[in-house]
Amino acid sequence: MDVPFILIVALIAGILSIAMAMYFRYLVLKEDPGNERMQEVAGYIEEGAKTYIKVQYKVLGFFVAALAVAMLFLPSPFEDSTTYTRLFPDVLNWEQMIAYIIGAVGSMLAGWLGMYVGIKANTRAAQGCTVSTKKGFDIAFFGGSVMGLAVVGVALIGVSVLYWIIPDPMIVLGFSFGASSVALFMKCGGGIFTKTADVGADLVGKAEYNLPEDDPRNPATIADNVGDNVGDIAGMGSDLFDSYVASIIAAMMLAATLPLIRDITLTEYGRFVYTIFPVVLCGVGLMASLLGILFIKWKGSDDPGKALNTGTYLSTLFFAALAALFTLIMVIGLNGEEATMLWKLCACAVIGLLAGIILGFTSDYFTRADRKPTRKMAEAAQEGHAVVILSGFSYGLLSVVPPAIGIIFAMVFTYLLGGVFGVAMAAVGMLAIVGTIVSNDAYGPIVDNARAIAEQGDLGDDIIRTADHLDSAGNTAKAITKGFAIGAANLTVLALLFSFTTEANDINPGTIEYMDLLSLNVLIGAFIGVVVPALFSALLIRAVQRNAGKMVDEIRRQFESNPKILTGEEPADFSRTIDIATKGSLRELVIPSIISIVIPIVVGILFGVAALGSFLTGAILSGFVFAIMMSNAGGAWDNAKKWIEDGNLGGKGTETHKASITGDTVGDPFKDTAGPSINTLLVVMSLTASIFLGFLMLFGNGAGLLIF
Amino acid sequence: MDVPFILIVALIAGILSIAMAMYFRYLVLKEDPGNERMQEVAGYIEEGAKTYIKVQYKVLGFFVAALAVAMLFLPSPFEDSTTYTRLFPDVLNWEQMIAYIIGAVGSMLAGWLGMYVGIKANTRAAQGCTVSTKKGFDIAFFGGSVMGLAVVGVALIGVSVLYWIIPDPMIVLGFSFGASSVALFMKCGGGIFTKTADVGADLVGKAEYNLPEDDPRNPATIADNVGDNVGDIAGMGSDLFDSYVASIIAAMMLAATLPLIRDITLTEYGRFVYTIFPVVLCGVGLMASLLGILFIKWKGSDDPGKALNTGTYLSTLFFAALAALFTLIMVIGLNGEEATMLWKLCACAVIGLLAGIILGFTSDYFTRADRKPTRKMAEAAQEGHAVVILSGFSYGLLSVVPPAIGIIFAMVFTYLLGGVFGVAMAAVGMLAIVGTIVSNDAYGPIVDNARAIAEQGDLGDDIIRTADHLDSAGNTAKAITKGFAIGAANLTVLALLFSFTTEANDINPGTIEYMDLLSLNVLIGAFIGVVVPALFSALLIRAVQRNAGKMVDEIRRQFESNPKILTGEEPADFSRTIDIATKGSLRELVIPSIISIVIPIVVGILFGVAALGSFLTGAILSGFVFAIMMSNAGGAWDNAKKWIEDGNLGGKGTETHKASITGDTVGDPFKDTAGPSINTLLVVMSLTASIFLGFLMLFGNGAGLLIF
Repeated sequence: MDVPFILIVALIAGILSIAMAMYFRYLVLKEDPGNERMQEVAGYIEEGAKTYIKVQYKVLGFFVAALAVAMLFLPSPFEDSTTYTRLFPDVLNWEQMIAYIIGAVGSMLAGWLGMYVGIKANTRAAQGCTVSTKKGFDIAFFGGSVMGLAVVGVALIGVSVLYWIIPDPMIVLGFSFGASSVALFMKCGGGIFTKTADVGADLVGKAEYNLPEDDPRNPATIADNVGDNVGDIAGMGSDLFDSYVASIIAAMMLAATLPLIRDITLTEYGRFVYTIFPVVLCGVGLMASLLGILFIKWKGSDDPGKALNTGTYLSTLFFAALAALFTLIMVIGLNGEEATMLWKLCACAVIGLLAGIILGFTSDYFTRADRKPTRKMAEAAQEGHAVVILSGFSYGLLSVVPPAIGIIFAMVFTYLLGGVFGVAMAAVGMLAIVGTIVSNDAYGPIVDNARAIAEQGDLGDDIIRTADHLDSAGNTAKAITKGFAIGAANLTVLALLFSFTTEANDINPGTIEYMDLLSLNVLIGAFIGVVVPALFSALLIRAVQRNAGKMVDEIRRQFESNPKILTGEEPADFSRTIDIATKGSLRELVIPSIISIVIPIVVGILFGVAALGSFLTGAILSGFVFAIMMSNAGGAWDNAKKWIEDGNLGGKGTETHKASITGDTVGDPFKDTAGPSINTLLVVMSLTASIFLGFLMLFGNGAGLLIF
Repeated sequence: MDVPFILIVALIAGILSIAMAMYFRYLVLKEDPGNERMQEVAGYIEEGAKTYIKVQYKVLGFFVAALAVAMLFLPSPFEDSTTYTRLFPDVLNWEQMIAYIIGAVGSMLAGWLGMYVGIKANTRAAQGCTVSTKKGFDIAFFGGSVMGLAVVGVALIGVSVLYWIIPDPMIVLGFSFGASSVALFMKCGGGIFTKTADVGADLVGKAEYNLPEDDPRNPATIADNVGDNVGDIAGMGSDLFDSYVASIIAAMMLAATLPLIRDITLTEYGRFVYTIFPVVLCGVGLMASLLGILFIKWKGSDDPGKALNTGTYLSTLFFAALAALFTLIMVIGLNGEEATMLWKLCACAVIGLLAGIILGFTSDYFTRADRKPTRKMAEAAQEGHAVVILSGFSYGLLSVVPPAIGIIFAMVFTYLLGGVFGVAMAAVGMLAIVGTIVSNDAYGPIVDNARAIAEQGDLGDDIIRTADHLDSAGNTAKAITKGFAIGAANLTVLALLFSFTTEANDINPGTIEYMDLLSLNVLIGAFIGVVVPALFSALLIRAVQRNAGKMVDEIRRQFESNPKILTGEEPADFSRTIDIATKGSLRELVIPSIISIVIPIVVGILFGVAALGSFLTGAILSGFVFAIMMSNAGGAWDNAKKWIEDGNLGGKGTETHKASITGDTVGDPFKDTAGPSINTLLVVMSLTASIFLGFLMLFGNGAGLLIF
């Protein structure tokens, strides 16, 4: 097979993206890093983040190496077999393994690059605020864009080059699994780190000693700021890198293996065009993102959040236009039936993107301080700690309904247009402008850090207020990103589920003829699947709670052993708190990571691959409920607290405020650890199922050891 | 068909049970109701409970009448049709409707009888404590047994008489749907009532005015006591009545319609024996319960909880022995294959019962103050309100895993023995000794009320401590019952799911050939199903929170408008608080009840009956997770608070105690409103699906209006 010229679009877009990221990096680094104290604080944050990343990447290295070896030596039913057809006989185990390592290293590289600029941008953004709000905004936005562009650029270059060398989706599958392994560690580890520090700092500093947010006397302040970088920048970046690549591979696999696309049989050339179509659309989406980012020009007068949203809208429009243009090019050489279907698939991608934006905005509605849910939650805080929790929990559960309806609509429309491949294309479309989304998202932690540095660098109340203003826009972007990320991950894993079953049937026809809930193994698979996200959330919440407990002890110990810390005469020992957060987060992510790899394999061995399919389905559905509930409840508690701190309902220091802090603290691990980690869990489990599928065929011909 | 002599076992057991209930009623009523003040308080409680029940039954009357009319006039595809075979041509719509009304009235009757004795027993148990602890225990236990025996007796008489008159499972299905409609109202309404009062009383009385529990000055005290009766006695009773009858009908339907039981084809006589086997085993179980209850003789020296547990163990043993005896009788006339299978089915029932007991004890483990989870939660309270919530939430989620494994094991074993009918028999077995379980459970609220009456009747600290001692045993029983009830409901609805699909295929072969998750409508059905328990929980928690807010306002208003209430010079206005709880609970249950009837019908109309099946599956699985999580987290928070109140970790009045109260208050609607109501939701939705199945066949031949 020859790779057509059109695939180069994706490669060029990827290279452009990296170039632009480098240019933004230059723009950020040339700015003034502020006064000595600010540089000192930024230095602490940088050092902490680097320490964490070094330790994290080291452990990750072992993990990736172990899985790589497993992939290499995995017994397989394909050797000397006439029963099984190897899906893609061209791809050898070691080739897939190398793609896996490239995926892992690429994801680590993108995370490092984005985070490195993030920790340089914070102090410069703070200093920029002393010149003008607009300048502060620009620096933070450019800093955040580096993450967004690096993620998408690396992903797209990786996918297109690998596919160019070996034009086979199995290669991309290996790459995707590598990205996922990294995302699992970065998202869970980062989430535990950031909330250990945040919760610990709040529980002792704010509640016991009445220190303000980001007070330099609080020994956990720096750890908290480090957490924003490793959790919200690097973690979210690797999460979306993961979903992004997974959506591409799911669609490619389906295009390569589905017997029929909706009702039509593809010619060989048609199948080839369909297989690269997802990659091309992602390239198109990246161009749309680049244009969208270039058009984000905030004038410095109104709400900076609007500028970020405008970027998202523009990217969407550009995407729709460019997708149509490239579809027009790609239909050349297709027969009439295939051409019509390609247009429908293009429509699916656009529908997916629109659905993603709608999902993002429902998250925004449920978490905005000026909307009913958050307002009601703030009012509930007047009745005490327990009532604010009940209110948040019930609104969190209610907030699952609108996005569920949104996803169902998107599924129905895209299925009607293009069958399961249409659904997969919706996932691709939803993630196509992920460059814009991640850029907007990474802006948040940078201004959050900038605010902290302004506070610690004594830039004065005016500058802190400016930074606060910029920060509030970051929170909206963050809420939208989370809704978006969950929806995208959900559609992506559904697409992976379809591709998994197609792959199984391709290896041995009839392996998953039906995923029939009336058959006991499939039912049990679904049962286990529904329970796993609950177990996973429980482990992560417990991790934060236990680790925060250690943090609390350390902060108290420092205050008690050295009273000069509280008076500000001597600095607190930041390295100890960073050390606790780092070690704790790594220790606590061992069991969740093992679960996400081992449980799917065990289900497949015992109950068979059809049960593994229903296991994934169960996990996807219950994971969706838990992820949305925890993200939205957490976000709303946070904003309810902020709204009260703005002077509403009595403001700071009241019992209402204290109750709202309880809500926020409960919400912290909900929204920043457990909730968003579920995305990664789902993708990792789905990819594990696909990667180990050949191995699982060894057990009862894929029917599992326990046959009923 | 002739009804064989053996069915009379069930009828006799039912009559015996009612007779014994009446005897216990007599034993309770002849006791001394205590001093004037106690009788006055008991009078208030009685009046409040009766008011609630009258209003509740009135609304329920309209609801039942409306559904009865719908059942009567439902268009059906059976008229003039050659496509459909009516499952049981003997049963006419109006006959099923009458069975429905009998089921509803029977459930209301049993609830009324049990609750009536409960509200008479409380003051007598308090007075009994002044004679001896044992006397107090006996009165409370006899009082509680009336509920247990009435529930099972009415259910069994209803089922066996109806089946005697028209030997057709469709009749029993109508009866079961009637019981379910009532349970939905009683469980949700009672749950909202009891927690409105409890949370309201705690938030103002305990937290703001530092009044002790059950203080007569607190205007919500009586409403709180009324809530124990309407929520914990009448509500739990109707819930288990509902599951009990549903487990019988699920098994009967399967026996009547399954083409094969595991691998064997039944003779006509064999099918008949199999169809009445569930009823006979329930009769046997009731006898075992009666014997178990008679053997509960607490000597008054050690932990009264042990006496209750001994009753459960003995009932289990008696059940196993009697079940074997009656199987020995029933195999007469069966061929060898059928006889062997009947023994296997008997084993399934025993396995089900054992699984139920194990489930109960895992709930107990996760909620007992002397076990690790609750102890850790209490320790977490030392770190503040937020940490105790996080700890409870994560333990609640973790506690889902062991019972899930238990249910999966039970499913695997019983499926291997008897196929889906084996699973249905496990549900029957699990619920067979429900008489004992409900008796133990209803003991709890009676001693809880007795304690309140002792406090308000000035019986002195010694008597209050005695009542407290009895109360702690009640809490253990309650925890076990909840785990048991959730497990039983779970297996029952699974059995109903199987019977629903068999029924569908019997009407029109191939309607649900597969419930294939790879088909979009089935996948969407499962998605909606997974979301519904979350939505339902959200609505119920919000209901409690909103209603408790009104209660708080009323309590504050009373204290402020009349300062003499706080000094004890003038009594509080109890009727106003009862009125708020009553009206609020009825208003708030409208939407959840409509949801549970309407959503399954809408799913069936739009996406077809196969999707309705996967909808039920999704709801069962996610409902299990939510129900266990909320029940166990709530129970553990409650016990952590009590453990702290016993003087641990600083005891009452400390910050730790306050944090533990927050946990308890959050847990209240979790464990007593939303969590246990999910059982009823699942049963109602499953029965709705079965009852409306004929109607749903009108839409695209059961494939739904939206055909993909």
